[in-house]
Amino acid sequence: MKVRGQHFRTIWLKPDDECVVQLIDQRFLPQRFVIEEARTVEQMATAIREMHVRGAGLIGASAGYGMYLAAIKATDCPSVAEFDKHLAEAAVQLKETRPTAVNLSWAIERQLKNIAEGKTAAEKPALALRTARLIADEDAEHCRMIGHHGLALIQQIARKAGKPVNVLTHCNAGWLAFVDYGSATAPIYAAHDSGLLVHVWVAETRPRNQGSKLTAWELGQHGVPHTVIADSAAGHLMQHGDVDLVIVGTDRTTYTGDVANKIGTYPKALAASDNNVPFYVALPSSSIDWRMQDGLKEIPIEERCAEELKHADGWLAGQHVEVRVAPEESPAANYGFDVTPRRLITALITERGVCEANEKSIFSLFPEHVP
Amino acid sequence: MKVRGQHFRTIWLKPDDECVVQLIDQRFLPQRFVIEEARTVEQMATAIREMHVRGAGLIGASAGYGMYLAAIKATDCPSVAEFDKHLAEAAVQLKETRPTAVNLSWAIERQLKNIAEGKTAAEKPALALRTARLIADEDAEHCRMIGHHGLALIQQIARKAGKPVNVLTHCNAGWLAFVDYGSATAPIYAAHDSGLLVHVWVAETRPRNQGSKLTAWELGQHGVPHTVIADSAAGHLMQHGDVDLVIVGTDRTTYTGDVANKIGTYPKALAASDNNVPFYVALPSSSIDWRMQDGLKEIPIEERCAEELKHADGWLAGQHVEVRVAPEESPAANYGFDVTPRRLITALITERGVCEANEKSIFSLFPEHVP
Repeated sequence: MKVRGQHFRTIWLKPDDECVVQLIDQRFLPQRFVIEEARTVEQMATAIREMHVRGAGLIGASAGYGMYLAAIKATDCPSVAEFDKHLAEAAVQLKETRPTAVNLSWAIERQLKNIAEGKTAAEKPALALRTARLIADEDAEHCRMIGHHGLALIQQIARKAGKPVNVLTHCNAGWLAFVDYGSATAPIYAAHDSGLLVHVWVAETRPRNQGSKLTAWELGQHGVPHTVIADSAAGHLMQHGDVDLVIVGTDRTTYTGDVANKIGTYPKALAASDNNVPFYVALPSSSIDWRMQDGLKEIPIEERCAEELKHADGWLAGQHVEVRVAPEESPAANYGFDVTPRRLITALITERGVCEANEKSIFSLFPEHVP
Repeated sequence: MKVRGQHFRTIWLKPDDECVVQLIDQRFLPQRFVIEEARTVEQMATAIREMHVRGAGLIGASAGYGMYLAAIKATDCPSVAEFDKHLAEAAVQLKETRPTAVNLSWAIERQLKNIAEGKTAAEKPALALRTARLIADEDAEHCRMIGHHGLALIQQIARKAGKPVNVLTHCNAGWLAFVDYGSATAPIYAAHDSGLLVHVWVAETRPRNQGSKLTAWELGQHGVPHTVIADSAAGHLMQHGDVDLVIVGTDRTTYTGDVANKIGTYPKALAASDNNVPFYVALPSSSIDWRMQDGLKEIPIEERCAEELKHADGWLAGQHVEVRVAPEESPAANYGFDVTPRRLITALITERGVCEANEKSIFSLFPEHVP
């Protein structure tokens, strides 16, 4: 998508030096647009661990490129056995960065399998490069297709509404969380690029403010009209007819249609249901957990550091600082995600099309996963 | 309630000089406990306007004391006519501080009526003093009675739960918003003081953080166990059985039972309803609007400055500072309140007892308001 009018992905190979990976260091957004260069698997592991890059799709793509960097380094190895040993170590190092991210291990396993097809150490880096590119391109392509299928839904609503379509979203399921387009934002960008008038309500998403920091920034850079709101304000807007549809992303969705996403998604789904506002979840099928049946009972919910909730970080006279917003002595609890039960979800928007949030409808789009 | 083990109200007369009003300057909480002295109606008007004091009950009590300070000053007036002119000017000055607060004009009118009963300028300050004390004492007594009636509800739940009772609240409807006890917090303090084990989930209440700044502080000072959470986390806690009841306050409630309260109350009521958690609203009857029938259509919702939402204020190395948390160029919308429809409310807790959130039940407790 666009930054200052220029097209960017979140991660790419340096045009004049394919041994270097470039990525947007998201820690400084929206204040500064910083491009980082990773030349080693260690640097890539740091970028993932310290959240220079984040979001399901982008973590997978970064891991893919990280394995490629490891493969370049390993070409110095005198034997295939030593090469493989070096790669196995790199895989462990990358996997340990964000142990709960599903896409991470998936991308690494895919690299190991493909690299193993090379018969000499000299052949392997080219295979790693091809796979890294494939992972990134597939991620972008899946998001593009989500945009295509979601656009049809927005067009339908636009015909009925006869005015700019108001979309509400939560957290950042934008292109910054993937390689390009994003999941929840893909239909929004597709609608905007097609000339439809769309306006996005961006919930700020306490405590890390991925909404106000990342989603608002990327929508603004691409020229999509938007307004930042408190997480608490979504229900009020829906009560007053100011939201035509909700689109959110997901960190993990069960094959039965229960959706784990950033904390605060469930109350927005309740408000949507109470006000007859369609509630969509946009996701590449890589986010579907084909083993889990009951989201509320089975999906583990990460509890993060309490200090994160007791602070807010932002900018003061151009400096990035953190301020305390709660009494030092008060305990705090910081749940990262909640689970929205399938009954509150109008439909899922996937790379293969739109389906209902239930087992039958999901398997009809992805029959290869029927057990 | 208690601050550092000592009993405090939010506003009182200086013990050794009854011409001085003392009040807790809430702008510095939770970092610093500052007591301000007001000697003139101008100083009191500033304290209300600049939110050194806030909250329905406390604004009314402050206006009552402000009129008393005006009356002391006016004893210099040579005639009753000039005294009354001076008081009328003070009334206008106070009313203009927070034009939407119902308790403000109610307290001022009550003062003007009672002061008018004095036949000489010399008699009037004593009448003003009596009325100011009466307004403050009534506010405290109404909140104490809300605590009494609410305690019975918590005791019932404690018998069923057989474990510490988890209460969830939003914003600050604590003693800091009244003269003492608070509305939503009164049953919590009564339960805690009676030896019941209660734990309070405090929603931080973006963007002004009255939950994490004021409610967490006052609960902590009184020794009530509590945990600060993101506004978005209430639904998740209810889904997992971690909330036994919700108690919130209100800025205005229709005689039919619709409740306007801090933005974010409505989604919490939806989550409570979805998880069979009782949802109570605690209010002195002064918060009931006896003319309004349909809360969603009739109650005006204040839209506050967008910059408030784009910033967070807190403490950095002991200094109170404000940091920007959203892109400078992104618009924001900042709705102050939302309306929870009566169908989502289990009951209202008033100074006269508990009633259902409907016209018939409300009028049965307050028959003098039947039109």
